[in-house]
Amino acid sequence: MTDSAQAATWPDAGFSATDHAHMAHALRLAARGRYTTRPNPMVGCVLAHGERVVGDGYHVRAGEPHAEVHALRAAGDAARGATAYVTLEPCAHTGRTGPCANALIDAGVSRVVAAMRDPFPQVDGAGFDRLRAAGIAVESGLLEAQARALNAGYLSRLVRGRPWVRVKLAMSLDGRTALASGESKWITGAAARADVQRWRACAGAIVTGSGTVLADDPAMTVRLDGVDVAPPLRVVLDAGLATVHRGRVREGGSPTLYVHAPDVKPPRGLDAQLAAAPVHGGRFDLQAVLAMLAARDINEVLVEAGATLAGGFLAAGLVDELVLYIAPVLLGARARPLFDGLDIDTMAERLQLELVETRTFGADLRLTLRPRAT
Amino acid sequence: MTDSAQAATWPDAGFSATDHAHMAHALRLAARGRYTTRPNPMVGCVLAHGERVVGDGYHVRAGEPHAEVHALRAAGDAARGATAYVTLEPCAHTGRTGPCANALIDAGVSRVVAAMRDPFPQVDGAGFDRLRAAGIAVESGLLEAQARALNAGYLSRLVRGRPWVRVKLAMSLDGRTALASGESKWITGAAARADVQRWRACAGAIVTGSGTVLADDPAMTVRLDGVDVAPPLRVVLDAGLATVHRGRVREGGSPTLYVHAPDVKPPRGLDAQLAAAPVHGGRFDLQAVLAMLAARDINEVLVEAGATLAGGFLAAGLVDELVLYIAPVLLGARARPLFDGLDIDTMAERLQLELVETRTFGADLRLTLRPRAT
Repeated sequence: MTDSAQAATWPDAGFSATDHAHMAHALRLAARGRYTTRPNPMVGCVLAHGERVVGDGYHVRAGEPHAEVHALRAAGDAARGATAYVTLEPCAHTGRTGPCANALIDAGVSRVVAAMRDPFPQVDGAGFDRLRAAGIAVESGLLEAQARALNAGYLSRLVRGRPWVRVKLAMSLDGRTALASGESKWITGAAARADVQRWRACAGAIVTGSGTVLADDPAMTVRLDGVDVAPPLRVVLDAGLATVHRGRVREGGSPTLYVHAPDVKPPRGLDAQLAAAPVHGGRFDLQAVLAMLAARDINEVLVEAGATLAGGFLAAGLVDELVLYIAPVLLGARARPLFDGLDIDTMAERLQLELVETRTFGADLRLTLRPRAT
Repeated sequence: MTDSAQAATWPDAGFSATDHAHMAHALRLAARGRYTTRPNPMVGCVLAHGERVVGDGYHVRAGEPHAEVHALRAAGDAARGATAYVTLEPCAHTGRTGPCANALIDAGVSRVVAAMRDPFPQVDGAGFDRLRAAGIAVESGLLEAQARALNAGYLSRLVRGRPWVRVKLAMSLDGRTALASGESKWITGAAARADVQRWRACAGAIVTGSGTVLADDPAMTVRLDGVDVAPPLRVVLDAGLATVHRGRVREGGSPTLYVHAPDVKPPRGLDAQLAAAPVHGGRFDLQAVLAMLAARDINEVLVEAGATLAGGFLAAGLVDELVLYIAPVLLGARARPLFDGLDIDTMAERLQLELVETRTFGADLRLTLRPRAT
């Protein structure tokens, strides 16, 4: 089985239990790079003779060796005649490192099992072709769904030309994000707030709006003690650049990008990146904003914004995942709603999602939802 | 261990694994009466010699034999020298049936283990006393918390003078119960709606408000095919009796009670019960309404109402359990809120609850919440 269409109709057929175990191991290794590999994909590699693992590794950071190289170094001469399990097609091009396909050929690997083909234009089947041309048996499609989920951001950027968009919101049981006064510290408890730091660490960019900057002056940095994290880009959507006097979003080690309307002249000497994006009827063209972030190699976006901007992403159909923390408190109907700008008049117009996970964090609940395929 | 204070500090100490198993069995039997015993408590009884069960039974319906009588009949002569496990203190008075304490004595039972004392004024320790006076070893407090939870309604009526109040609501992810137009059919799916029928069947009374009757003209009957249910009283809180032209709430086999303001004269010939309750500032005194329902032997109330009445029960601190169905849909900020009348201005004033259970029904989520002890 060498293409994903077949894998989709008969998933993982033809692979042994040993194959599954090694690929699952490779996927777990790959995930260790979740806070550091971007903009590169997360990749894991296991070299094995039958059940016996002779080397493994994962891609840690862009510019550093790929997963295959780590595994080959660990295996040494034992790589000869081994099967290589890789969560993504080995690369065929010379980037900051040499082509992994060549490294596998040179090491004398006899079989390569990949979870999926890499849609990166300079790879996209060329890695498989080079391996086959060298007489290596190549199979793809083992645990492909898991591999696709792992690199949803990378794949979204390459295939759709926009980052994977995850919207995080915290609300009361009655769907409120803040009191009428704006007071929102804190609806959820410490455990839920700590979990948010992990989503931030996964994101290439954290996007917020001018309203949130004005109301809360957030730093939007990642606070995960002792964990290596590539600092995400902080993005403030501020058409008129009216919030640049609120400075916490420029503090700390992360870069900051202000997105403004094309006709706005940025102030001099602002210690931040700037980019213009189209505004229609007073609102940013969010599709264009996402395309611009993809062009800056952003795989995953975490939207941490108020009702208007979060509602804007939803209304535009640009949300891939909604992470909703629910605190077991009631704030009443005078408090602020979860979303603005969803103009729904009939049940047929309602936005339908699918609940994919439920978890508790302390006293709070976290729901993970995806748009329902229609 | 013979009193619940001790049981609370050192739960279930002194009871063997066999004792626990038999009492757990008795509790499961008791729960079989959940749709039919009211206004009586649910009670189960197991007669055993060591691990060997010689008879068991549960109370099915008010006016029919108690659990102990069913178990004694099943055991016959084998009851002699047995231990009787009962989920509630055996009765000592002659109601529609004879005292169970006497029946256990006459059968020659040698030991009685109860989950809890019965606070019913004509029992309240007198059952235990009579058994002890006959030379029977009596212990109480085994799985008492479970027994109290089982009969929360019965205990609430006797001890607090009001029914256990369960508020059921169905909402969208963004905390909306209906569109601005009032359209609410259906936010949740078939599995969640079927589950609501089971809560109705548990309730002695289903309470709604005039707003819901006007908007939806609901029948508020129990629809559980093939299940024996004592039809709950349907209660409409309608100060001015303005909804009596909406007739579905009087259809079917269940009784209907209209609660109205004291100065309102009911129309002649209305095929329903009527009762007056105090109204302050245009709103019913809900504490008085509940006291009146307790006086009518209602153990459990299910509130199925709109934002105003549900919010009124919450604001008055009269909600014991909130059953919240959440559909994975978004209805937008123009849609109707979950509660009205919760006037909350600061985080310190927020209503805090505790999440006690999370379950999915089809695509929907059901949260069970209780007020947090403060």
